[in-house]
Amino acid sequence: MTTTDNRKMLIGMQLGNGYGAQVTAWRHPSVDVENYAKLDAHVRYAQKAERGKFQFLFFPDSPNQTQKHPADAPQMTLDPLITMAAIARETTHIGMATTASTSWNEPYNLARQLKTLDMMSGGRIGWNAVTGSDPMGAANFGQEVADSAQRYQRLHEFVQITQALWGSWEEDAWPPQRETGVFADLNKVRPINLRGQHVASRGPLPIPPSKQGQPVIFQAGGSPNGVEVAARHANVVIGAAFTKEDAKAQRDRLRNAAAEAGRDPDEIKFIAGLMPTVAPTVRQALDRRGFFVEPHIRQRVSYLGMMLGTTLSEQDLDSTLEGRNLRANPSDPRSQRALELAQEGWTVRDILYHGIIDFHPSPIGPAEVVADHMQEWFEFGACDGFWVSPSLYEEDIDIFVDQVVPLLQERGQFHADYEADTSRGHLGIGKQYGLDPRLQ
Amino acid sequence: MTTTDNRKMLIGMQLGNGYGAQVTAWRHPSVDVENYAKLDAHVRYAQKAERGKFQFLFFPDSPNQTQKHPADAPQMTLDPLITMAAIARETTHIGMATTASTSWNEPYNLARQLKTLDMMSGGRIGWNAVTGSDPMGAANFGQEVADSAQRYQRLHEFVQITQALWGSWEEDAWPPQRETGVFADLNKVRPINLRGQHVASRGPLPIPPSKQGQPVIFQAGGSPNGVEVAARHANVVIGAAFTKEDAKAQRDRLRNAAAEAGRDPDEIKFIAGLMPTVAPTVRQALDRRGFFVEPHIRQRVSYLGMMLGTTLSEQDLDSTLEGRNLRANPSDPRSQRALELAQEGWTVRDILYHGIIDFHPSPIGPAEVVADHMQEWFEFGACDGFWVSPSLYEEDIDIFVDQVVPLLQERGQFHADYEADTSRGHLGIGKQYGLDPRLQ
Ligand SMILES: Cc1cc2nc3c(=O)[nH]c(=O)nc-3n(C[C@H](O)[C@H](O)[C@H](O)COP(=O)(O)O)c2cc1C
Ligand SMILES: Cc1cc2nc3c(=O)[nH]c(=O)nc-3n(C[C@H](O)[C@H](O)[C@H](O)COP(=O)(O)O)c2cc1C
Repeated sequence: MTTTDNRKMLIGMQLGNGYGAQVTAWRHPSVDVENYAKLDAHVRYAQKAERGKFQFLFFPDSPNQTQKHPADAPQMTLDPLITMAAIARETTHIGMATTASTSWNEPYNLARQLKTLDMMSGGRIGWNAVTGSDPMGAANFGQEVADSAQRYQRLHEFVQITQALWGSWEEDAWPPQRETGVFADLNKVRPINLRGQHVASRGPLPIPPSKQGQPVIFQAGGSPNGVEVAARHANVVIGAAFTKEDAKAQRDRLRNAAAEAGRDPDEIKFIAGLMPTVAPTVRQALDRRGFFVEPHIRQRVSYLGMMLGTTLSEQDLDSTLEGRNLRANPSDPRSQRALELAQEGWTVRDILYHGIIDFHPSPIGPAEVVADHMQEWFEFGACDGFWVSPSLYEEDIDIFVDQVVPLLQERGQFHADYEADTSRGHLGIGKQYGLDPRLQ
Repeated sequence: MTTTDNRKMLIGMQLGNGYGAQVTAWRHPSVDVENYAKLDAHVRYAQKAERGKFQFLFFPDSPNQTQKHPADAPQMTLDPLITMAAIARETTHIGMATTASTSWNEPYNLARQLKTLDMMSGGRIGWNAVTGSDPMGAANFGQEVADSAQRYQRLHEFVQITQALWGSWEEDAWPPQRETGVFADLNKVRPINLRGQHVASRGPLPIPPSKQGQPVIFQAGGSPNGVEVAARHANVVIGAAFTKEDAKAQRDRLRNAAAEAGRDPDEIKFIAGLMPTVAPTVRQALDRRGFFVEPHIRQRVSYLGMMLGTTLSEQDLDSTLEGRNLRANPSDPRSQRALELAQEGWTVRDILYHGIIDFHPSPIGPAEVVADHMQEWFEFGACDGFWVSPSLYEEDIDIFVDQVVPLLQERGQFHADYEADTSRGHLGIGKQYGLDPRLQ
């Protein structure tokens, strides 16, 4: 597969707390420790991503941000909908998708906030609809986590009610007509009267169509129920995979499921996770990444032993693993890469500095290493693009934008500039206003 | 009573849809009809109020904004929390209080959004905690309205859980300590584990103290249960009264109830509603106001007849009511004022142009008329200040700021400039962080 088909990758950026995707980023000397609660920082990071022509920002979220270790900052902190409102007014093109749970919200409230954001941003909003499966999150609502079938049934109902509310103001009832004195034709802003097993709403939601009509649905997950709802409702799937083969299998599964649900598979984009570190040399990149690994290196060293079928402790940190009888532990998909690094002769510390125990693949080294990884996956058909989690927003976004983005552009892998100014436009997906007509 | 005690009035401004407090304001030639959904307009209005040194903006809200008449714009439209986020970043001093219902939200979600706003605004946020008593609003959540006792019990639990969440990050656990590597002491960001009959939350909410600690509680209502919760929790009561005697009675009742609940009565401010219209002459002011009355004048003329104990129809619009046997209908507190206007010899149309059928007193004429009304009420002890509902934001805020505010300042009734930059500072109320210690 070549890129002569002119297909270009999409790039999104994870934006969580005010420091970086690494929970120890707050300790970096470049950081104002109070950025945790300063929207100025979030806005600045968003502007950097927009300078890089990224298609979207992605806000992970969960109602359980309890800090687990004294050295760590919670991953997400301030409310992401409020954060997006600030960013929307201080950017012009970049899309923004936030995670919000269908278990701990009401469709009317969430539909209203998301549509408000979509209006004010000129059609740049997406919603990552997840169920929320964390008991500590549930406890913030005095509840317990329901089983998967119940959670996803509620999600399915919730998404449909939300979309119906979004479409409850008919498009041609806007704008108001001063000449006739009719603000909106009452027959065109109508109740939806939907009631499911879990959620219900009467409507209407009195918000007119946005520049893109209504927000785009994202989904994150991969469990069978997750794939099913994504295939029916989502235009973007925020994914996680450690090999391009696994990513391709996930992407193919999604595309097939979408086709089975009667949709064009190109209407659903599978976006793979990426945690790159860029520096002029591999050694410098390792030391850059190592800063964030160090505070937790003791716990990680024993886990690495488990991944490699050996026993490791702090004393081994500066040794290589030559002569040991190693095997990749099949219960952790990152073990194979750890084994390769061990076989290349890296010390235990440097294996860990490679970001081997992290949520996503971590290409590390000069910009070419990162661009090569992305191009390889993309041309393999592993994904439609990447969501990048910069370790340290304050520095790593600029480095990626100044060094990796131009390479991808030169290679024809990534667009040279925004072709649109709405999320639907960036993603190249069709229009949808209100409920999906196939579901009505 | 004189103002030699140096007590000064507070001024707040109602901010709803993008046009004005009159539902017909959208038709005014000065208005961009698309302001309904343009935050630029809301931000501009907020900046005008800040220029006038107003202490706060007040966002009424309800989940039932169904348009009732083709000529009317819904009163509030875009989500107020999202709107406040935009305004917070483009103003520096003015406080902002939004209404949010305790029946159709979850404490954790609302606590998080409000505290996020309080952080990002530098401590300028207030929350008008209402139960929500509208069946059409309830239907947007597939529910019915509970009885008053249940609604207010939920509100009482909700406010306490919210405040406990706000205080769940101990003040001295902020800011993060780069030197020691401790982001926050885990013993100082702790669960709250509160469970009531209606709502519950585990916590903690991982948001540090804002510049004012946490948001201020507002309340709106006046029913016995409403007064009780206000007396326990609120620092500001958004009120409605048509005579200064009634306002004073309401204020005294609140102050007594606060004292009975063990609080200093000066910690609770009663804010009276006001819908002024200012123009160089009374005639010009009437015509200004009349623009907004005209679209509904037919319905109003018959209602005015009911208020005056007579029968009125469209044919009577340009007649005076001389010779009729009139009496003020005691079931509507505005009838007395309507009777006075009839006795002064105004035509039916002009009586209606006085804004007689409106939510609040409507002083109308040159700026002195409005300033006199405000001073008279304030010196009578009727209120601690006013919340002004400008008919037409695009013009009426500036007129009030340029003409009424300087008069009140000259008379020593209103402050010359902000003395503080937080809501607690503007209101002159004490600190509270977490739950009220008297309730713990
Ligand atoms: C890449 C990725 C990102 C995710 N982001 C979130 C998130 O931000 N918030 C959340 O509550 N869950 C998130 N999830 C969890 C999923 O929504 C889902 O709960 C999880 O995959 C478990 O599957 P299940 O809920 O179907 O059992 C994410 C999952 C993946 C794979
Ligand atoms: C001045 C004023 C403003 C109010 N603003 C709101 C509002 O914005 N949203 C709302 O749902 N209710 C609002 N209310 C309604 C009250 O919260 C309350 O529901 C009403 O007074 C009826 O009393 P009850 O609910 O105790 O029966 C307001 C009431 C008053 C007097």
